Amino acid sequence: MEVERIELLNGVEDHHGGVVVNFDVQEPMDSMLFSSKLEASISNWRKQGKKGVWIKLPLHHANLVDSAVKSGFRYHHAEPDYLMLVRWISDTPDTIPANASHRIGVGAFVLNNYKEVLVVQESSGKFGGTGVWKMPTGAVNEGEDICDAAVREVKEETGIETKFVEVLAFRESHKSFFEKSDLFFLCMLQAQSFDIQNQASEIDAAQWMSLEDYAAQPFMQDNELFDFTTKICFSKLGGNYTGFSNVRTSTSSGKKTYLYFNNRDASHLLASQQEQP
Amino acid sequence: MEVERIELLNGVEDHHGGVVVNFDVQEPMDSMLFSSKLEASISNWRKQGKKGVWIKLPLHHANLVDSAVKSGFRYHHAEPDYLMLVRWISDTPDTIPANASHRIGVGAFVLNNYKEVLVVQESSGKFGGTGVWKMPTGAVNEGEDICDAAVREVKEETGIETKFVEVLAFRESHKSFFEKSDLFFLCMLQAQSFDIQNQASEIDAAQWMSLEDYAAQPFMQDNELFDFTTKICFSKLGGNYTGFSNVRTSTSSGKKTYLYFNNRDASHLLASQQEQP
Repeated sequence: MEVERIELLNGVEDHHGGVVVNFDVQEPMDSMLFSSKLEASISNWRKQGKKGVWIKLPLHHANLVDSAVKSGFRYHHAEPDYLMLVRWISDTPDTIPANASHRIGVGAFVLNNYKEVLVVQESSGKFGGTGVWKMPTGAVNEGEDICDAAVREVKEETGIETKFVEVLAFRESHKSFFEKSDLFFLCMLQAQSFDIQNQASEIDAAQWMSLEDYAAQPFMQDNELFDFTTKICFSKLGGNYTGFSNVRTSTSSGKKTYLYFNNRDASHLLASQQEQP
Repeated sequence: MEVERIELLNGVEDHHGGVVVNFDVQEPMDSMLFSSKLEASISNWRKQGKKGVWIKLPLHHANLVDSAVKSGFRYHHAEPDYLMLVRWISDTPDTIPANASHRIGVGAFVLNNYKEVLVVQESSGKFGGTGVWKMPTGAVNEGEDICDAAVREVKEETGIETKFVEVLAFRESHKSFFEKSDLFFLCMLQAQSFDIQNQASEIDAAQWMSLEDYAAQPFMQDNELFDFTTKICFSKLGGNYTGFSNVRTSTSSGKKTYLYFNNRDASHLLASQQEQP
């Protein structure tokens, strides 16, 4: 009698009774061979009582996606260079968590020593060619903190160095990008340099402007959300507004994290706490 | 001479000079035929000056993923039932925006009329079986507002009806779920009902507890982040803390949105503004 021996896929156990297969083989693989390995591996993991099985397939193994789907896998999330598939192989209820749901944007209210605001004219997008002066805005990169993203965007768009002060307000909107939602944080930053160097291709012009002139633009007055945020900036300029500043602390799993809160009202919390880099 | 006629793919123009193909054909399609259609369509779109081409492939067309990748497409994002691929076909710089980067969580600080806090014991996860009393927490669903998610989670876990008051603080952490980041909003809610009905399978027990007893749990004292948030809750309970409350407004594209800000410091903004449902 002949016995066929099938090499199993390499899986790493996760903390939730599941297995993660990081399929980082460089060589192409035949989809029939992959199917056999996958079926044998699932049978083995099921015997071990595993629940969720994750397969991370790099782009160059796109020929194996169909095999995984035929074996009962569904998509979970994707990035430019890989697709993550998942299958629940236990009889217990499926507790696979949802995918990332939000993109995070930042806007920067940057003040110089003359209480002028840093504004830009965008070369494309909704505001391209409109002549509207707006605050620098941009998207938070993967793994980047909100406070750092605001400083980076200002530097990229205007060459100005800044220091993060606080989040003045934020708004949430939905279906802003296919089915995904969007959280936008209006951040106040203090300028550390003053000579504008327009470096980014998406910016036509940048300048310092009084908040009055900024607010007087017809677009700002006609738009409820812009009008609100401008009023918040005026309150801040007048010294009558406190947003959320940040403190470096640790989560229960020991991970470093920024907590954003009203530090004026709760400054005693920080009395025994040194801010860490 | 014979001329082969290839039916092109149906694409809908987006607002950025691109095309979106929602490939919602029910019948299976041969991957060779799909490749031909795709190549012919790309050639056509390129002539039209299109830039980004998006293809949304439902799970049941997984056999076409490899063809799209071989035609130069990369992955953009995925949900359980579809994969979104993208290719930049213009000579201009690729400006395809990034995928959603964050999952959003909420925690609920719910007070009753006796200034007691609503707490639960979780049956699984990190706190399962530890006996720790913690505030109800959960993930925001796709398209759901933060304020609504907090109310829903409390209802699901304890049966208690609540009204959203404000965001007390938030924290950001990274690589919390594969490469994705996490934003967690601590929300204060006012209880509108008081009889606890433990309904969710993930909850072992729920009760009202004094904030002092909650804070005295060893876990809370040993953990810097929990200690901070508890202190913020004490400040709130003492009437000395203002978080961000929300107002319904509209974005520049006319979309309804919640703006969260310090309403105590900027209440004059709302003087002429009626809160809308």
